[in-house]
Amino acid sequence: MRDFSQDHRWLSINTATVRKQRGADWPLLEILDACAARGIRAVAPWRDQVAAAGLDATARAIRSHGLELSGYCRGGMFTYTDAASRQAARDDNRRALDEACTLGAACLVLVVGGLPGALAGKAAHKDLASARAQVTEGIAALLDDARERRMPLAIEPLHPMYAADRACINTLEQALDVCDALDPPVPDGTGREARSGALGVAVDLYHVWWDPRLAQQIERAGRERLLAFHVCDWLTPTTDLLNDRGMMGDGVIDTPRIRALVEAQGFAGYSEVEIFSAANWWQRDGGEVLDTCIERHRRCV
Amino acid sequence: MRDFSQDHRWLSINTATVRKQRGADWPLLEILDACAARGIRAVAPWRDQVAAAGLDATARAIRSHGLELSGYCRGGMFTYTDAASRQAARDDNRRALDEACTLGAACLVLVVGGLPGALAGKAAHKDLASARAQVTEGIAALLDDARERRMPLAIEPLHPMYAADRACINTLEQALDVCDALDPPVPDGTGREARSGALGVAVDLYHVWWDPRLAQQIERAGRERLLAFHVCDWLTPTTDLLNDRGMMGDGVIDTPRIRALVEAQGFAGYSEVEIFSAANWWQRDGGEVLDTCIERHRRCV
Repeated sequence: MRDFSQDHRWLSINTATVRKQRGADWPLLEILDACAARGIRAVAPWRDQVAAAGLDATARAIRSHGLELSGYCRGGMFTYTDAASRQAARDDNRRALDEACTLGAACLVLVVGGLPGALAGKAAHKDLASARAQVTEGIAALLDDARERRMPLAIEPLHPMYAADRACINTLEQALDVCDALDPPVPDGTGREARSGALGVAVDLYHVWWDPRLAQQIERAGRERLLAFHVCDWLTPTTDLLNDRGMMGDGVIDTPRIRALVEAQGFAGYSEVEIFSAANWWQRDGGEVLDTCIERHRRCV
Repeated sequence: MRDFSQDHRWLSINTATVRKQRGADWPLLEILDACAARGIRAVAPWRDQVAAAGLDATARAIRSHGLELSGYCRGGMFTYTDAASRQAARDDNRRALDEACTLGAACLVLVVGGLPGALAGKAAHKDLASARAQVTEGIAALLDDARERRMPLAIEPLHPMYAADRACINTLEQALDVCDALDPPVPDGTGREARSGALGVAVDLYHVWWDPRLAQQIERAGRERLLAFHVCDWLTPTTDLLNDRGMMGDGVIDTPRIRALVEAQGFAGYSEVEIFSAANWWQRDGGEVLDTCIERHRRCV
């Protein structure tokens, strides 16, 4: 397991962590400057932030700072109610894919969607199995484009508390079942199996830390499926289902233990900090938040 | 599948559903009167409500109304930090067991506990695996007493959002693994396996509705392990992790589909309504809530 205590070369900042400090949007290009100034080598920006800053301007800033993208947030939202909404989702995902390529992201992260309409408070139906089937179908269609562009797709299982409205893939096992169905392992000629690397998972500890099958499924995933590793912490109490994530070290997730499991499979990428925190971290100075991320990355990840 | 549309003979009211209406505790004995007056045949009271009303007075009221108890809420909270807290949990669970016997409950429901201290906001450690081991140990110890008293223990898997502070058994599969470990199936002489009925699960749809393995695990459970069936609904959005449960029909849970799965295994018990709803149902007249439960039981369960 890598030693993170001496530097922060494997720290990545998901830019949602500092997206709206004290009520005002922190512009993406300023976030990139602030990260680069601190020796942070990687980020994961959100599409709306990129759109606000301009795709080309963002790509230039990333290149000029020498930043890497541990992932691009996000594609997905595959579930639909009719042919038009299905096509709209496909078109939007292709655009996300193209943006990820322009920015040189390591992968496009997929938050797959829940029951259609549920995020707006009006679920079109209660058939979770059909929503899950739509997700598999949507990823299958996008995977063709992703292979062409050599942009890996990372399915992010979301915590079961988001099953209705954000993502109906809720465990690592479920995500890996989709991976194996759409991108089957093939014999590699040495008696083992190889995976293409085109489709894998984003392991966000906030979503998966509780799972009794976690260790088993990380092992199942193996190196080629482990495309991203996200950290924050689970607070007790948690006061909001979406925006009360904790800074690493402030909650109950045994992050080093899980990082050890992932690294035992050969994962050697960035540890991406993604914290939605309306009442705490979004109320502070963005630079202070970044400094805290660096310190906690060294001490608690 | 039983037809619930014509009457409410299989409706049970978990008394937390109407425990504090408009800010004031509704005394348990009044709740029992109100249920009986509506032809509701079963309830599931909480220990603190019983303690406030008096155990003997509660038992008398239950008998005089001819009410059944679909379950008794609750035992559990097995996790500990030292020998004294372990012993205190054991003693308290034995008392719960005795109360369940006095009240003639169908089972004692177990909410197993999370990381010790987490419910008070100060987790003693982050070792979820050790908490889970303590839970298995605690249930094993209690099971001896439960067998003597012929009081079934129903492990209630809680939603993963409660893994830290309330229950580290978070899927039906995990609960059934504990059941099979502590109360192993034995050959019944006809080529099938029998389960003793001493240990099983409480399937609360709020906690398990999202689980991709739900149908498979309900089938695995079979009739002897299916000791209780709890309903409410999952709202979109959900504004509070604990006290924003919905009335059946107001959310996204496909209750009839899951009831069909449970009944296909031979479950023929009560459908117990358990709704914690600080901002909505607890702000209404208790009689109105009970009437709504009856109507929704017929139409949406």
